Parts: sequence; structure tokens; C-alpha cells
Amino acid sequence: MPEAAAQPRQTSITLADGRTLIYYGALPRRPADYPDRRQLTAVQVMAEARWDWLLGEWVVVASHRQDRTFQPADSQCPLCPSTPAHSTEIPAPEYEVVVFENRFPTLAGPAHADTGNQDGNARDSLAAPAGASQPASAASLLTARQAAGRCEVVCFSQDHAASFADLSLSQAGTVLSAWTDRSAQLGLLPGVEQVYCFENRGSEIGVTLPHPHGQIYAYPYVTPRTGRMLQSAASYRAETGGSLFDDLLAAELRDGARIVAAGGHWIALVPHAARWPYEVHLYPRRRVPSLPALDGAARAEFCELYRDLLRRFDRLFDQPAPYISAWHQAPVRREAADFALHLELFTIRRAPGKLKYLAGSESGMGAFANDVAPEAAARRLRELG
Amino acid sequence: MPEAAAQPRQTSITLADGRTLIYYGALPRRPADYPDRRQLTAVQVMAEARWDWLLGEWVVVASHRQDRTFQPADSQCPLCPSTPAHSTEIPAPEYEVVVFENRFPTLAGPAHADTGNQDGNARDSLAAPAGASQPASAASLLTARQAAGRCEVVCFSQDHAASFADLSLSQAGTVLSAWTDRSAQLGLLPGVEQVYCFENRGSEIGVTLPHPHGQIYAYPYVTPRTGRMLQSAASYRAETGGSLFDDLLAAELRDGARIVAAGGHWIALVPHAARWPYEVHLYPRRRVPSLPALDGAARAEFCELYRDLLRRFDRLFDQPAPYISAWHQAPVRREAADFALHLELFTIRRAPGKLKYLAGSESGMGAFANDVAPEAAARRLRELG
Repeated sequence: MPEAAAQPRQTSITLADGRTLIYYGALPRRPADYPDRRQLTAVQVMAEARWDWLLGEWVVVASHRQDRTFQPADSQCPLCPSTPAHSTEIPAPEYEVVVFENRFPTLAGPAHADTGNQDGNARDSLAAPAGASQPASAASLLTARQAAGRCEVVCFSQDHAASFADLSLSQAGTVLSAWTDRSAQLGLLPGVEQVYCFENRGSEIGVTLPHPHGQIYAYPYVTPRTGRMLQSAASYRAETGGSLFDDLLAAELRDGARIVAAGGHWIALVPHAARWPYEVHLYPRRRVPSLPALDGAARAEFCELYRDLLRRFDRLFDQPAPYISAWHQAPVRREAADFALHLELFTIRRAPGKLKYLAGSESGMGAFANDVAPEAAARRLRELG
Repeated sequence: MPEAAAQPRQTSITLADGRTLIYYGALPRRPADYPDRRQLTAVQVMAEARWDWLLGEWVVVASHRQDRTFQPADSQCPLCPSTPAHSTEIPAPEYEVVVFENRFPTLAGPAHADTGNQDGNARDSLAAPAGASQPASAASLLTARQAAGRCEVVCFSQDHAASFADLSLSQAGTVLSAWTDRSAQLGLLPGVEQVYCFENRGSEIGVTLPHPHGQIYAYPYVTPRTGRMLQSAASYRAETGGSLFDDLLAAELRDGARIVAAGGHWIALVPHAARWPYEVHLYPRRRVPSLPALDGAARAEFCELYRDLLRRFDRLFDQPAPYISAWHQAPVRREAADFALHLELFTIRRAPGKLKYLAGSESGMGAFANDVAPEAAARRLRELG
């Protein structure tokens, strides 16, 4: 396995409405030659985090987002490079990988401090009010704070028709570098508790822009699923003295039935209690908390393995798989030594022409039912390799 | 408000493959005249509950369901009354409301005990292995049990083209009686921990049969969302001495901004931390744990109010709203005195032609973002009344 290439060049510019954009890689050669010439007024962001006392979770209300760009014509794609005829979000006429702040963010601040919200301090991360030591009163049950944080867009390629599976290894490595860099940088922002890099792919998932891209959310709170994983790992540590993530990976390797691919640095497996028809989790063999802690060899192997898995997903039903790809990283401030960085990749397609929907049982009760046995899914994905 | 009518007549028959069907109401006049004449082999049910150690939840793997009936032609609808030319799931040529066991259940047993699963006892409900007092070992991390329980179908009307909003008050009352009766009866089955009556409506939600119907799941475990609500209510009781459900309802009534309708017996409101574009929760003013505890006056008013709300949902975008309607009831065995029966109704349509998808943030991290302010949603729903 070759060592990863040196970190790609990165150049930061400011867009017309004050947002930051960063070019990763060799293109454009002279970024300063391409200022953003658009007339853009700053979007008024109205994002508020509300505490759901019944479920013990923050819910973000972002009512400015209803007017966001929705399935534009290809010629109007805001993620393509700019041309003389069409100015996009990316001022340059070419790029390798680019990251910029979302014009319609779910979370905003401290860069966008004047959001009109009443009682938030953009520099505070959000603790659970239920965990406060003082008893809650009925008067405080309608709890709202400013939903500070950051939402960024990551364009994987300037090629409108490409997908992550099509990228060269070098290009995939540049994307991984961008994810890694942004995870480190966003984790330093005041108030940010967790950085989440992910890709939604396919109109079946609700993607409104087909240009190959992902997103990064920097949340002002630890997300519900990550919070539960941390709690499980802590309970397990207290009861057994061991690491839940390590022991689960060891149990899966010993059993073997759900292993999809095993490299020198990564294991790809369908988890024993998979929720989705085809769901693969990628774990580095050496447990690390987050992307910046991966070493060069692991980074290089990831790019090969991940691209390979995406191609298998597309071969499942001989058409582009609608998928969600989710990087699970440890929170940046809370003690999380037992957390294991991993990627969860799943498609909602369960058969040709049939999708898995989150209907009454899942959306109403959080009770998942999976129609595809995880062992059968793993066998299928092995065969497609 | 009139008292509810007397309980409707109910008659139980056995279908050709051994499943139970119950007619509620006056039709057919002589159920015994209509035996099920189909040749049906019993469906081999392979349902297994697997414990997700990372999230602390059971996930059901039901791999026999992939071949379930999928969007048949109207003439082949299995939920219409039988005709001489077409035998359906309902042998009679007419019915008011009917409930029967799902031929493709997610959960099965004890009625279907020979499921081929290895280590389950259909009469045991499933406790969380994480909560066991003995430390878990790595060897036990691939935890699976038989997913015992019951899945039933509730046909709201013999009219294929109707919807719940179209039902007469008397017909809606018969459905409510069926929900109530099944909640009581299924709660008595060994191993059942929670009974869940719900409706998925619309192909956008993934509904495969358009005939107006709902479902009832009798789970062998307390579902994740209900478990969290119970935990929140218990913490709140411990910290404040009060009832979280009562105090939340009082806070909403005092604030008023999200109240959609207030009857003598029910309050309909958009919750302060709503997750969905248009989401209404219906609470009885007098807190009860489950449907069988509702009194006659509350039952009668519910039918009027609920039908009214469904009609407002259909008027939101001048087309049938895709919705999920979910009855939250207390678990049947666990101590749950603080739980409040309520119905959560929500649509995934956020604008004409636009749906709310559970993409990367929601499905990956459990972090919800709502594009419609709950106050605006409540105002809109009030105006549509």
C-alpha cells in the first residue's frame, strides 16, 4: 500500500456574501484571479435549536431553508465551475475539490451572529437541559437556543456527471484530505461539539443537486446517535473493562459471516443488527477517534476500498445506488476515548424498483425492521467484488 | 358531545392458513356463511430480533417479507371484500371494519411458533441485554432472539377509494373500537410489551396497498422512542415531582402559539420541537395510559376532531397528504404510570411537490432539522379549519 501523497494545496477565498470557499488541490492555478463577481445579498438565517423534552434531543428549526435551490437545470448547476455565461458558487473555471459554506445552512454562526434569535450565544455549545442539576420547571419547557454551528458543501469533482466511485485515487485522496482538514478546523470553532462529513446520493434520498458533492455539519451539540454510542461504550467499559467498539469488531471478525472485505488497515462489514437493506460499516483496524488521527497508509487504503464498495453498490441492481455515507467521529470536546471513527454506508434500495421507507414503525417508534438478512447482504456484496 | 355508541359486534373467523380475522360492526350479517375457500400455504416466517449494542436497540430482521404484495392492480386488491371472481383476504362480500393477522408479518408468534429460529422462546418478552446485571462478554455481542409478537392489518372501510377522512362518524367510531379492543387483547398475549396502532398513508410513505387501512404491531420489547419518553418522564418526576406530559401540555396551552384545536376532551397542537413540516399531536385533556382507558365522551370527540384534522392535512396542498399517524400507548407490562396516550400525526410534504426526506443528518446522526416553523404550521392548520 503506498503512503498517501503529501497534503494538497489549499487556498481560501471569500464569496460575494461573505462566505468562505476553499480550493483543495492544484486547480485553479491562480485562485486570486477569480473573484466572485456576483451580486449576492447575505441570506437571513433563522435557525433555532429546540429541546424535545420527551425524547431528550435537540431539533433544529431552520425556516429560511424552504426556498433553497431545488433540482435546477444542468446548465444552472451552482456546483459546476463558473463560465463566462454562468457564475456559480465556485468562481474559478476549473477546480479539483472545493469546500464552501452552504448558502442555505441548517446551522449558522458564529460567523453569522446577527440571526435575530432571542436568547442564544453563538459561542456556547448546547448541553442537554435535562441533564442540568437544577430541576426544570414547567416555565422552562419551551426551550430554544440559537442553532449555532456551520454547514459546508464539499464538491468532489468539477465533472457534473461524475460520482465518488468515478474519482481517480488521487482525486479521492484530495476529498479525504478536505474532510480531514475541515474536521480539524471546524472542531476548533467555539461552540462546535461534533463534526459530521457525509454524502447523500440520489434523488431517492432527497438530493436536490445531482452534481457530485457531500456536506459537512459542525453541530453545537453531540448528536443523538453519537450520544447513544458513547453511552453504550461507557456502560460497556464500566461493566467489562473492555472497549465495546474493539470487542464488536473482534466478534464480527471471528464470526466472519458478515465481513465484506478485509484489508491491511480497514475492515468492511455488514453489522449483525443492520437496519438497512445493504449497509456496510468501514472500521480502521487501529481504532482512532476521528479522521485527523488516521495515518497515511490507512488513508491510502481507504480510498481504494471505499471506491470499490461504492462500485459494488452500483452493481447491486445495475443502476446508481441511492445511498447515504456517514462519517462517525468522536465529539471534539467531550471525553470520548472509547469512540471509534468509522464510516456507515447504506442504500435504501431493497430490490429493483423497491425502496426501504422509514414508515410507521421506524419513524413513529424508532423500531427498525430489515427485510434483507445481513448475512445475505454481505454474501451478495462479496460476490460483486 | 354525545356518548359513544355501544361496542360494535365482533366476530372472529379463521383464514385458510390458520390466521385469525375479526369483523367489527354489523356487516357481514352472518359471517359464518363466508368461509375462506382459498388454498393458502402458511407463510414461513423468519423473523429475528438482534440487539444493536452500539445504539442499545433491538432491530428486527424479517427476510421472508421481500416477496410481500406490492402495488397490485385495483382489481387484485387483497383488502377489498371477496367477490365470486376474486377471493381476497376478507372472505365476506361486505364488511364495516375488519382486522386480521398480516400474511407477511414483521413479528410472529406465539401463534407461529415453528419459525426455525434457534434460541428464542416465543413467550418471553425481550429485555435489553445491556441492562443485564452480569457483564456482557465479547462472545455474546452477536445477540439474536426470535422476534415474537404480532402484526395485524386493520381495514377502515370496504370502499377501496375511501380514506379515513371520508369515514362517517359511526364508521370512525368502529375503527376506534377495533384499535381499542385489539390493544387490550394483544396486550394480554404472553411476551407482548407494547401495542402500536398506526396508519401509513400514501405511496410517498412507501404504502404498497392503497386500500384504506392501518396496522397494529404488538412488539416483544418496548420500542426505542417509547423507552426514551418513559426515561424522560421518570427523570422529570424524580427531579421535579411533576408529570412531564402534564406540564408540557400545560406549557403549550399557556403559550398558545402552537394550539391547532382545543375541544372539551382533546387538544391538538404542533409540538414546540416538531420534527416534521406539519406535525400535530393529539392529547386527551385527562391523561390516560392507553386507548382502553378513554371514556365514551373522549372517544366520540376524538372521531370528530381527528377526521377534521385529516381533512385539513389534505387541504394543505390541495391533494391527499402522505402521512403517518401513530398511537403512542404505554407499555403493557412495565411500570408506566406517567405515560400519556397520544396520537402523533405528521405529513412528509413540506411544499407543493417537495417532500421532507430523512437524509444524512436524520438517518445518519438522528439529528432532525425542520424547515417549517412549528408556529407557522399551527397557524396554517388553524386557518384551514
